[in-house]
Amino acid sequence: MNYRIIFHTLGWVLCIEAGCLLFPLLCALVYGENFMLYIFCMLLCLAFALPLIIKQPKNKALYAKEGFTIVGLAWIVMSLFGALPFYFSGYIPSFIDALFESVSGFTTTGASILSDVEALPKSLLFWRSFTHWIGGMGVLVFLVAILPLAGGENLHLIKAESTGPAVGKLVPKIKSSAKWLYGMYIIMTLIQILLLLFGGLDLYEALTLTFGTAGTGGFGILNSSCADYSSYVQIVITVFMILFGIDFTFYYLILMRRWKMIANADETKAYLSIILLSIVLITINCRDLFTSLGEAIKHSAFQVGSIITTTGYTTTDFDLWPEFSKTILVLLMFIGACAGSTGGGIKVSRILILLKSIVKQVRISTHPRSVVKITMNGRPIAHETIRAVNVYMAAYIAIFVVSMLVICLDNLDFTTNFTAIAATLNNIGPGLARVGPTQNFSVYSPLSTLVMSLDMLIGRLEIFPMLILFSPNAWKK
Amino acid sequence: MNYRIIFHTLGWVLCIEAGCLLFPLLCALVYGENFMLYIFCMLLCLAFALPLIIKQPKNKALYAKEGFTIVGLAWIVMSLFGALPFYFSGYIPSFIDALFESVSGFTTTGASILSDVEALPKSLLFWRSFTHWIGGMGVLVFLVAILPLAGGENLHLIKAESTGPAVGKLVPKIKSSAKWLYGMYIIMTLIQILLLLFGGLDLYEALTLTFGTAGTGGFGILNSSCADYSSYVQIVITVFMILFGIDFTFYYLILMRRWKMIANADETKAYLSIILLSIVLITINCRDLFTSLGEAIKHSAFQVGSIITTTGYTTTDFDLWPEFSKTILVLLMFIGACAGSTGGGIKVSRILILLKSIVKQVRISTHPRSVVKITMNGRPIAHETIRAVNVYMAAYIAIFVVSMLVICLDNLDFTTNFTAIAATLNNIGPGLARVGPTQNFSVYSPLSTLVMSLDMLIGRLEIFPMLILFSPNAWKK
Repeated sequence: MNYRIIFHTLGWVLCIEAGCLLFPLLCALVYGENFMLYIFCMLLCLAFALPLIIKQPKNKALYAKEGFTIVGLAWIVMSLFGALPFYFSGYIPSFIDALFESVSGFTTTGASILSDVEALPKSLLFWRSFTHWIGGMGVLVFLVAILPLAGGENLHLIKAESTGPAVGKLVPKIKSSAKWLYGMYIIMTLIQILLLLFGGLDLYEALTLTFGTAGTGGFGILNSSCADYSSYVQIVITVFMILFGIDFTFYYLILMRRWKMIANADETKAYLSIILLSIVLITINCRDLFTSLGEAIKHSAFQVGSIITTTGYTTTDFDLWPEFSKTILVLLMFIGACAGSTGGGIKVSRILILLKSIVKQVRISTHPRSVVKITMNGRPIAHETIRAVNVYMAAYIAIFVVSMLVICLDNLDFTTNFTAIAATLNNIGPGLARVGPTQNFSVYSPLSTLVMSLDMLIGRLEIFPMLILFSPNAWKK
Repeated sequence: MNYRIIFHTLGWVLCIEAGCLLFPLLCALVYGENFMLYIFCMLLCLAFALPLIIKQPKNKALYAKEGFTIVGLAWIVMSLFGALPFYFSGYIPSFIDALFESVSGFTTTGASILSDVEALPKSLLFWRSFTHWIGGMGVLVFLVAILPLAGGENLHLIKAESTGPAVGKLVPKIKSSAKWLYGMYIIMTLIQILLLLFGGLDLYEALTLTFGTAGTGGFGILNSSCADYSSYVQIVITVFMILFGIDFTFYYLILMRRWKMIANADETKAYLSIILLSIVLITINCRDLFTSLGEAIKHSAFQVGSIITTTGYTTTDFDLWPEFSKTILVLLMFIGACAGSTGGGIKVSRILILLKSIVKQVRISTHPRSVVKITMNGRPIAHETIRAVNVYMAAYIAIFVVSMLVICLDNLDFTTNFTAIAATLNNIGPGLARVGPTQNFSVYSPLSTLVMSLDMLIGRLEIFPMLILFSPNAWKK
């Protein structure tokens, strides 16, 4: 294990975090709030960062093992320092709760332990939403885009931080890939901000809501989440949630006019079909709860878009919906968004690979000598990718079960526990029952809060970067 | 597809079913109940069976495809005809409900739509319990053991009907394997009957209770399931439930004194460890609910043994236990018993293979060039077995999800729906909440009842024999 490069990179991560704290600092200055808080937190970040980055590592080799470890540790460090503004401001007096809020932000979960977010100063809410935006595309992807780190082996960093079963390079150079991803991310973010400003929101509202949408996060600045905004704003958010849940490679293909590859995009097609089908089913099932068909469609579409992309914004209390609609939402929690998007969950591509492997098995059982290849986007999938998907599922279930067993010690009901783990491990935000849209996660004990914080990190990093941190094997020199 | 051999074998299955009906007929004669019912049902079975068995198929070749199809169809036919006594007796006026009860019997689930079983005549309860015993070891294994069917290709029948990821031949000849399995099954059944008679039960009680234990079924003859029996009887049942949940190969190894292989029996060791750990945890968690530590251990052990082996007998209403204990039980529902036992669920060996594949992946991530082999019982596992386990899991989850979506249309709560599918797909019997130990499945609509009947068959036959019936590919000549 190349410890030097690990610590060096972690130093840079803390520098970026210090830089990010400039934004809430600015916000505090504008609104005349306590800006010393952010200066203090920035200095703390830098105090830890500078000793780490001063010394250049001699050996810049960065293999898969180091890639995983850096990403796992970076996200823990980021979350720990990201919790400081919440903690030192005094608004979240327990550090474990502050950490939960910070992890929930960076992992773009949006689950909160706060029962009254409106009591927080604007700059703190700004930081809370901004962590979504940072975590959405990932801090190491950003690092690779801007820093003269090592060479082509940075792919390992991007692989470990990006979502989905297999990440290819968009353009021949990995650095350009990372730059392109962030460029697209910023452009889409700007468009949404403009559209929200156009809808009558002020800049502060537009920024925070867009951060939550772009990162598929879900922290709002009102206790009512998105229920009190105009239909126009709600529709803009619905559309952008769904757009940010699509593989960013898809936008690259559109810009490059690769029409044949676009026509072959299995995952995007499946993702949009699932959304459409869910909206139709829920609209029919919940029609009587709303004053008009238009309202029913609007709320169904918002909630479906919010849950499948794992954003977690809400415009209505879906815990009051009939069981059929609720079960569809729980199912969407697990499916999640597309690979290579900012969304969480298991990912549509993994679900497709699993379904295709079932069809393959049935075919082999009936025609043992036939050769069946699983394809995706018109190409056969590598054997290792299928194996990785299977192992991911096994590990996913194992972590789900262990987490359930720990949090059920708090003796809350099965539905609450099940959806609490589903909502954190899939980076959604709200669950059902006691952690439903109008509730929050403060009902759980500190131990459960810690376990769910870990689950959010495990979910965002798709398990293995976190699992490897617990493997003694990885720490050998 | 060799249709002739399929119909021929189905004919024999019906003959066996007619033969099985002799037992409740005898029971009806003893207790002076309506015996004409059983004669009528036997005649119906034979009327359909005789035309099918009279003509010998020219081509006796039986490949995997035919093996799967025969097993899938045989279990459907068996269940349909097995429902007739319930239906014609008038005690279950809806045929869908009668079918549910019959499927629940043969698949050794033990879920019931009856709220008052004690209202049924003794001979009908005898038939209900006896279906557990038939389904436990499997009717085609029985057929292979006694009938001069085709040659070595009967392995496909046994493979499709037996439980677990991979079935080997115990002894060189598959016919002898089948004979040995049934021999052992009968001997263990007889021992339990004797022990129960020794505990003061009458022959009728001893027989029905043993059938439910041996098949890991769970139909009782009292509304209180096993709560009203003596501690001695409860302990005998606990021990035998656990014994019938062990791979029958393990008993073969003991009889053959293969000590080294016994020491290497990973699955049996894991199974017993899970049981022990669960009993300890639940005893601690539920200690205050019982008058003494001994009582707490007894009830914990009974419920743990009942749920992990997927029997479903109960001595106490575990729906009133704290959430931690209930969640452990729900987890045990999914784990299930050992491969090659009469128990259901996912099976301990599959869980072990999945866990080992996670460890393997972590090792490969940290040391990409290392070669890691997954072993089981001291031997490396074939690649196809691992793939089959993965596909099984994917199909299992897919079926679980689709079933949930259908039954939640009845608008019962999430816990009820989730555990109802868990209880039927894993062949347990009781779930939690509205389908808890003191409740029954009559709360569901006919559509849900049908879906859950299908789930029980899918669970018992481990998915593929049923899936293949729905594949148009399989039906081509």
